[in-house]
Amino acid sequence: MADSRQYFALPSPFAMKRGGGLRDARLAYETWGTLNAAHDNAVLILTGLSPSAHAASNALDPSAGWWEDIIGPDKAIDTRRWFVICPNSLGSCKGSTGPASINPATGDTYRLDFPDLSLEDLGNAAIELTHGLGVDKLAALVGCSMGGMAALGGLANHPGFARAHVCVCSAPRAQPFAIAIRSLQREAIRLDPAWNDGHYNDASYPEAGMNIARKLGVITYRSALEWSGRFGRIRLDPDDREDDPFGAEFQIESYLNAHARRFTRSFDPNCYLYLSRASDWFDLAEYGGAKDPETAVRNALARMKLERALVIGVETDILFPLSQQQQLAEDLRATGTATTFVGLDSPQGHDAFLVDTGRFGAAIGAFLASL
Amino acid sequence: MADSRQYFALPSPFAMKRGGGLRDARLAYETWGTLNAAHDNAVLILTGLSPSAHAASNALDPSAGWWEDIIGPDKAIDTRRWFVICPNSLGSCKGSTGPASINPATGDTYRLDFPDLSLEDLGNAAIELTHGLGVDKLAALVGCSMGGMAALGGLANHPGFARAHVCVCSAPRAQPFAIAIRSLQREAIRLDPAWNDGHYNDASYPEAGMNIARKLGVITYRSALEWSGRFGRIRLDPDDREDDPFGAEFQIESYLNAHARRFTRSFDPNCYLYLSRASDWFDLAEYGGAKDPETAVRNALARMKLERALVIGVETDILFPLSQQQQLAEDLRATGTATTFVGLDSPQGHDAFLVDTGRFGAAIGAFLASL
Repeated sequence: MADSRQYFALPSPFAMKRGGGLRDARLAYETWGTLNAAHDNAVLILTGLSPSAHAASNALDPSAGWWEDIIGPDKAIDTRRWFVICPNSLGSCKGSTGPASINPATGDTYRLDFPDLSLEDLGNAAIELTHGLGVDKLAALVGCSMGGMAALGGLANHPGFARAHVCVCSAPRAQPFAIAIRSLQREAIRLDPAWNDGHYNDASYPEAGMNIARKLGVITYRSALEWSGRFGRIRLDPDDREDDPFGAEFQIESYLNAHARRFTRSFDPNCYLYLSRASDWFDLAEYGGAKDPETAVRNALARMKLERALVIGVETDILFPLSQQQQLAEDLRATGTATTFVGLDSPQGHDAFLVDTGRFGAAIGAFLASL
Repeated sequence: MADSRQYFALPSPFAMKRGGGLRDARLAYETWGTLNAAHDNAVLILTGLSPSAHAASNALDPSAGWWEDIIGPDKAIDTRRWFVICPNSLGSCKGSTGPASINPATGDTYRLDFPDLSLEDLGNAAIELTHGLGVDKLAALVGCSMGGMAALGGLANHPGFARAHVCVCSAPRAQPFAIAIRSLQREAIRLDPAWNDGHYNDASYPEAGMNIARKLGVITYRSALEWSGRFGRIRLDPDDREDDPFGAEFQIESYLNAHARRFTRSFDPNCYLYLSRASDWFDLAEYGGAKDPETAVRNALARMKLERALVIGVETDILFPLSQQQQLAEDLRATGTATTFVGLDSPQGHDAFLVDTGRFGAAIGAFLASL
């Protein structure tokens, strides 16, 4: 299949928040719809940790994307009206420059020589891309999960770049429970001898570590409520059982196995470590010039000069709890941004935005239609 | 220090639920208070997965026990009135027979030759001990966490053996979220090359796997709410940071490191695997003779002929959610057991029973005083 992605060359060097610069770096991206004459109908979407730029099918790649039910003609993000842009995150491995890319200074893969990556770098790079496509101001900046933090980071560095913001299952700063989970995921990868300080290859690959990291991810992306209804205590058929006294015995275990199998070899472990650590580091309060973090977050939001915002999340999310979205909505309102808050009771946990697309689509569609 | 534990020889062979029998097996246990002339003041306590029999200080061992604030003269479990017994679980490694013990048939450590362990075996062994101490009927059987399931398993096999039951942060069957967590903990240990199918030793020990298992345990034993208040985004002093680009940076990470360090070498990995799997297997519905699990659990509870029960848990518990305790209390009431349900808003999650001893003690003390 032909490469359906387009590529955008970032300014070289591209300055990184924590120091250093990337030479000859690029973002892979896809678009849907058409930029209008006024250049004021652009919607930028920033993804969660692992998705590619292929958010939805398009002419270049008719396969379904990761938000296929949300993006398209007459869908919530209506591509008849909006010019939609989705990049693969800087630091990721789905076409954009990251730790798995070749370092032009050495001709070798960056690995741990990639500079410190911050979510602000992801947001800033995506805004460079948007500029490059002829857009000086976004109609809306949509950020999902990690992408929601990257969006706030980008706007903190480019106040006024978006008229509206849609925050999907995200937060202005990581809380210790989420840090603990991500730290443990990174530790599982780093403790795998095959990780070898980042010097693995296809033959010697930290599969065990990635396996544990992904399963822990899936556990925290979904919810106990959903699983009780979906899996209960259903056991595997004896024919599907491994010949191992501690092997999978319950359906929930084979579900996790299947998720891990699909992910482990398809996402670069070093990229995973960099993006995961960047999520822990992110703290919008850094931009607020106040010692008290709550005040600092409000100050930082005020500087963004957003006209409108939609903040949406679900009650069953344990990674980005709804209380964080509620607080963000209150903070946005306090800064004068007209803000809609939607708290859903979707049982699917953090991943609800990828699964319960009916309800997420309804809320996002209504918000965008009102702009 | 002298060994403060006493030892009880189980009937030999001791029949295991899933087949096979243990020869020359024993339970380590401790007691507090005095058995009265009527032999009707005995309270048996079954522990969570890792604690020893040393629930509280006593003449033989004046060091503080794991439930020091709850057990003692004039405390919630008042040793002036009650004769209190606490065994180390069968299958554990704190004095009782388990996978780390010598197999008398071979003279070698059991390791994975230990027979399949079920929580019913833990409950049945503890009831044998109680019998051996001259008690034909318990005043109360108290089970904490895993011990709550072992208690129900023991009572399912010995109907009428307890007049009252105190269920602390436990449940009648494991739900898929808890199974997923425990399955991943076991996988982390098994994937550690040093585990070596159970054939590790002090020099080659699955420290990395145990480390991950324990940290994941601590994450699910506590709560996001508690950590947000306690750790926030506080960073470590630069002097306390490791020289590692992915090393601990936040206080929450060093907190997890400290917990793991204390545990990793003090609990036998094979015992951990056996007890963890037994927790997944436990399902009181097996004793109910009905296809529908809800009906089966009620039938099983009815057979226990409990006069009184206290079911207590906390809203922030993600491993044994409060909804399970609420349901258990309703089921007990439906079977004619006079039941008190206490749902606390303690922020400490599952571990609240070990930390928020003021509120747990008040509820348990009031219940026992009313017997």
